[in-house]
Amino acid sequence: MVDPRTSVINERLSRTRRIIAVSSGKGGVGKSMVATTLALALARRGCKVGLFDLDFTGPSTHIILNAGKVLPMEEKGLVPPTVQGLEYMSLVYFVGDNPTPLRGIDVSNALIELLSITQWGTLDFLVIDMPPGIGDAVLDLVRLVKSIEFLIVTTPSPLAFETVKKQVNLLCELKMPVIGVIENMKMDQSNSVRVETEKLGLKYIGGVPFDLNVEDAIGNPDKLLKTKLGKTVQKIALNAILVEHEVE
Amino acid sequence: MVDPRTSVINERLSRTRRIIAVSSGKGGVGKSMVATTLALALARRGCKVGLFDLDFTGPSTHIILNAGKVLPMEEKGLVPPTVQGLEYMSLVYFVGDNPTPLRGIDVSNALIELLSITQWGTLDFLVIDMPPGIGDAVLDLVRLVKSIEFLIVTTPSPLAFETVKKQVNLLCELKMPVIGVIENMKMDQSNSVRVETEKLGLKYIGGVPFDLNVEDAIGNPDKLLKTKLGKTVQKIALNAILVEHEVE
Repeated sequence: MVDPRTSVINERLSRTRRIIAVSSGKGGVGKSMVATTLALALARRGCKVGLFDLDFTGPSTHIILNAGKVLPMEEKGLVPPTVQGLEYMSLVYFVGDNPTPLRGIDVSNALIELLSITQWGTLDFLVIDMPPGIGDAVLDLVRLVKSIEFLIVTTPSPLAFETVKKQVNLLCELKMPVIGVIENMKMDQSNSVRVETEKLGLKYIGGVPFDLNVEDAIGNPDKLLKTKLGKTVQKIALNAILVEHEVE
Repeated sequence: MVDPRTSVINERLSRTRRIIAVSSGKGGVGKSMVATTLALALARRGCKVGLFDLDFTGPSTHIILNAGKVLPMEEKGLVPPTVQGLEYMSLVYFVGDNPTPLRGIDVSNALIELLSITQWGTLDFLVIDMPPGIGDAVLDLVRLVKSIEFLIVTTPSPLAFETVKKQVNLLCELKMPVIGVIENMKMDQSNSVRVETEKLGLKYIGGVPFDLNVEDAIGNPDKLLKTKLGKTVQKIALNAILVEHEVE
């Protein structure tokens, strides 16, 4: 049986020009930081940007943004509040600070519900903070949403990159476009992630140096954009995305 | 309907004295490193130890241990190979390096299958490397396995500790024993994780200093045990567990 809500999802997203899912093989690689920084940076360049936190393993972008007590408004669905110039929507508006021991089937249901009720405006970009790995949420998003592009975050650690390979294999099998790979928390000049990324046939977008100051910038978007991570993401990711954008 | 395999699971684990699930709210906090180090350290103190990698988001302990090409043996089920003095079993023996986009229901099935076919010997400790978060695998493990204790790994990051709170709330609701919280990748002397942990009514086991050398020790267990992480886990975690062990 087709869930009647699925038919409205692409209608809901029809005014969004590009959907970028920021993804990682495993957690703890800075995916949420990169997604938030990317969304902020695009917005500050004058684009209309939405940020959608779908990290079912623990939404965190509201903490990074210091989103405060804003809430979506009900208006034939839910209208995302504006946070730091972004149209912002997060799982946290539904689960709050309660534990969310969601079974896979519940993740699917919640994802479909959120996608079908959220009333995004006209957007140049919708940046999605995905859950790490390749579980129900990724499979459903790929199934439900047309024209989604993936941006992959990893670290130099072999433990992280191993999981990236698996994710890339899956995305290739599913014929999903991958913008490229960002190497976060880079501690030296090693080019092994670049080499491995190119072996996978993907674009190595660039390396973000390890930056102790990032933790202190949580909750302070202006400060975040000025960290090494903030500056590098603006330079490398933004250019990779905007160049492609303008070429289109 | 009760899955007939579930009835054999506790029989399979009946010769194991204590089961310690090393868990985290989010990924990337060093959970697999702590689990592996803990198992190695217990084994080197003369305990009989099993290590079971059930991290469905990406098993990694085989890389940390440099487990090589050993495989479980079929013998009325699967007998774990011995790796570095540990009885060792991992998801990786089933999924290999393929992408494993497991839906929740498949995670449940795989977990039940693995628990019901693995022939552990007589063990003092079975250390389980859990998937991060509180998804299907955690819910099933708690449902299926008697007397499992949780050891929680976090980092000082508020993003990590937020997820720990949720996990602890869930474990408390489920009345699961929690040995305590280890704070990994500690960069300064801040005691906020200790304070927050104690507010949750849990034992703060100790802090593990951030250690750049840990990455280089991946694949080299002897070197791993000599890193700051290795030494600290041996001191703090081992003592917390063995003291309890001897008091029993």
